Amino acid sequence: MAVPAWIINLGTELCIGRTVNTNGSWLASRLTLLGADVRRIIVAPDTEDEAVPVIREAVEKARIIIITGGLGPTYDDRTAEFIARALGRRLRLNTEALRMVEEKYRAVGEPLTPERRKMAILPEGATPIPNPIGTAPGILIEADGYTLAALPGVPAEMKEMFTRYIEPVLRRLLPPVCVVEHCIRVEGVMESKAAPIVKRIARKHPRAYIKTHPEGREIGEPRIRICILLSAGECSEAEKEAKEILREAAEELSRLGGRVEQHA
Amino acid sequence: MAVPAWIINLGTELCIGRTVNTNGSWLASRLTLLGADVRRIIVAPDTEDEAVPVIREAVEKARIIIITGGLGPTYDDRTAEFIARALGRRLRLNTEALRMVEEKYRAVGEPLTPERRKMAILPEGATPIPNPIGTAPGILIEADGYTLAALPGVPAEMKEMFTRYIEPVLRRLLPPVCVVEHCIRVEGVMESKAAPIVKRIARKHPRAYIKTHPEGREIGEPRIRICILLSAGECSEAEKEAKEILREAAEELSRLGGRVEQHA
Repeated sequence: MAVPAWIINLGTELCIGRTVNTNGSWLASRLTLLGADVRRIIVAPDTEDEAVPVIREAVEKARIIIITGGLGPTYDDRTAEFIARALGRRLRLNTEALRMVEEKYRAVGEPLTPERRKMAILPEGATPIPNPIGTAPGILIEADGYTLAALPGVPAEMKEMFTRYIEPVLRRLLPPVCVVEHCIRVEGVMESKAAPIVKRIARKHPRAYIKTHPEGREIGEPRIRICILLSAGECSEAEKEAKEILREAAEELSRLGGRVEQHA
Repeated sequence: MAVPAWIINLGTELCIGRTVNTNGSWLASRLTLLGADVRRIIVAPDTEDEAVPVIREAVEKARIIIITGGLGPTYDDRTAEFIARALGRRLRLNTEALRMVEEKYRAVGEPLTPERRKMAILPEGATPIPNPIGTAPGILIEADGYTLAALPGVPAEMKEMFTRYIEPVLRRLLPPVCVVEHCIRVEGVMESKAAPIVKRIARKHPRAYIKTHPEGREIGEPRIRICILLSAGECSEAEKEAKEILREAAEELSRLGGRVEQHA
């Protein structure tokens, strides 16, 4: 039973290509290893017209939604507002979030200005997620049919908060699985020549995901990487099947003159 | 007049977080500099259920759509099919594309197998885009209301084909603009303290995009980067306004005790 997950990364710095979306791929990798089925990583601007429909669609189509960016104190940090609008919830000053924010600034003798207080205004029914590194709390909403978390865009804060506070919540949602990935590299066989073999093997092992990545040049310097992604209830079972599939692929491709490098 | 652009990057290697989507940010940066307004970068799996609705929505909402991935010879390379389905067009063997593919393989004495021939089956009305590095041609569709291009997922091929063949087409579509970006770094001022100043400046300069990026730690080691993105008909005009805005920001933040580093 696949549990669909969507990742939404908000921010103009991502849309203009100034920042590479490493948050998206980090989250995708973590969610995949937890056993979720990541079906979208969406970068969108932090404007109401663009962000609200994306969040609304995510809630309709996914069971897990992770949003990054837009939780800070500046005028364009509006993710809490977008989530509230997408879900049809009100925005409320969250007393627990306010306590978290206040504490941080009080410790350095700074007052609670409107910009700082704003970080504690969350959608109704949300649980604030502590931010051990920065100041903006995250947002967790567990509803019928979906679990949505919003985390800061600063990678260190996002990673720490996901690992500490979101992962345990998701583990309860997701069936216990073990996801493994193994790859081999094959030199001397064109991807187009490997294609029918890969297709045949893929048909034979429907629960494995088999992908070839061209690394060299199809014409002149053919080199491909073949990867198997497989999830199973037990790690040993997943490992065994993935290695079996790769052995099969390596054998057939060697017969075509390919030089196979294991564990690529 | 903003020309909306969507980027769609198809591939399970992106969804599982194995590959960071550098294609997405590279394209976003190029499209931004050409004057387009990038509103989505979407990573989705290369399955019909997921990819087709994304392409359909892109064509409805964007004027420029760039798709990467899924043009190769393997069983899961199905982007041409997804585009055809999303646009309601038939798939046809494109004789020009076939010539491109055939030529590549003939040069090394390789026959035209079904997997290789598949790379020349394109949506009706599409123009094949030559691939100077690999073998799979790209796809260009210029229709009423939108221009759609599909390019390989291999970064070197994608970049070369975009620069040589897609950029000239887009330049004809987009108004001639000059987009500039300038940043400063400010140490010693918290982002939450800079927020009201940034907001006031942003209101005063509605055509500039002003963004603060926290770099240090809000509490204890405050350091922020402030960037201005601005487009204008003339470069000199864009440069002048961007620098004026940064001067204003630097002045106000220095007054709060900030140490300003120019050209950050």
